[in-house]
Amino acid sequence: MNFDYQMNPQKIETESFRQIRELTKLVHFSKDQQQVVMRVVHSLGLPHLAEQVRFSENACEAGREALAKDCPILCDVEMVKQGITKRMITQEPLCFLNDPSVAEIAKSKGETRTMAALELWRNQLKGSVVIIGNAPTALFRLLEMIDQGADKPALIIGMPVGFVGAAESKQALWNHHQQLGIECITLLGREGGSAVSSATCNALLRCNRGEYY
Amino acid sequence: MNFDYQMNPQKIETESFRQIRELTKLVHFSKDQQQVVMRVVHSLGLPHLAEQVRFSENACEAGREALAKDCPILCDVEMVKQGITKRMITQEPLCFLNDPSVAEIAKSKGETRTMAALELWRNQLKGSVVIIGNAPTALFRLLEMIDQGADKPALIIGMPVGFVGAAESKQALWNHHQQLGIECITLLGREGGSAVSSATCNALLRCNRGEYY
Repeated sequence: MNFDYQMNPQKIETESFRQIRELTKLVHFSKDQQQVVMRVVHSLGLPHLAEQVRFSENACEAGREALAKDCPILCDVEMVKQGITKRMITQEPLCFLNDPSVAEIAKSKGETRTMAALELWRNQLKGSVVIIGNAPTALFRLLEMIDQGADKPALIIGMPVGFVGAAESKQALWNHHQQLGIECITLLGREGGSAVSSATCNALLRCNRGEYY
Repeated sequence: MNFDYQMNPQKIETESFRQIRELTKLVHFSKDQQQVVMRVVHSLGLPHLAEQVRFSENACEAGREALAKDCPILCDVEMVKQGITKRMITQEPLCFLNDPSVAEIAKSKGETRTMAALELWRNQLKGSVVIIGNAPTALFRLLEMIDQGADKPALIIGMPVGFVGAAESKQALWNHHQQLGIECITLLGREGGSAVSSATCNALLRCNRGEYY
């Protein structure tokens, strides 16, 4: 049994992004936005998702600048944290989901653990990059917290996935980001997840290193 | 700013699976297969993926039996490992991608780290559950190793994602599984990833605990 397949990692990556450029319309995106959109498409294998990505006016710039200053990277779940490419960051991303206090808060309030964990984000929010790849409830709660005066992240990457609240939470982020004065990158619709949201952060980290595809 | 959203985790899960049953055709799947297919759809937010899931004849049974015996769970990347629900397993899943020897093997052979890491799987393969959620090269290499006489896993969950080799590697798994005498679950096409592949394993673990949706 002999399979003919590309096994050189550089060639795989180059050919992947060549195909993605061929399969998507990127002209209306800026240079940095294109890198993000291509990573979104790459991580889910779905070219049509290019049309569902939304950027606030200075999202890429704000995210790049914060990341260049080694800002806190706040993640809703461990898989998102795991998805950030380690060689490109100097400090570990933060995820408080498994903090012993979180299960208790969630249980007593009858809410999800992912949203309960946001109580532990408060001191880290200012100037951070927030990545929500799993939980619509965490994204809704974050918007409420900011509306009520919590510190603002430099950038919110909001890409939860699923059937209950995912599309709605991302639409809420997109509809209210200007009013709240926040920069954001989101993927409208049900699609999303930990891989695509960490890939978005990785794309900005790569831009900071001059690695463009 | 007040958002109206469901924050009770049990209600979110119940409503998600209610919607998925409404949006997909599941009648031609067995009871356990339905649980897997719904988790696949759930983890990517894409109902049409139900049509791309393939099961070998005894895939669910073989996977459930191996997992019930606390078999090794071998993962191609750390994100897959992170995706396995910890409360349902007694020993940590294995991922050798970051083993110091792997980068060296990969560099000297001019191949991907994910496929080079499979050298370290050999002693663990027998009766294991293998989960490949990222790397087509790892799936191709595994098929070659089994063809050349390596021990057989009890089940291969093969769901790499992407543009170069992903669809091809899953088609190869599906086309050759009978000839190789292996049980497998796969998701044909470009779609896949760490979340969907670990969700597939989690679905089988849930069946073993009698947690059906």
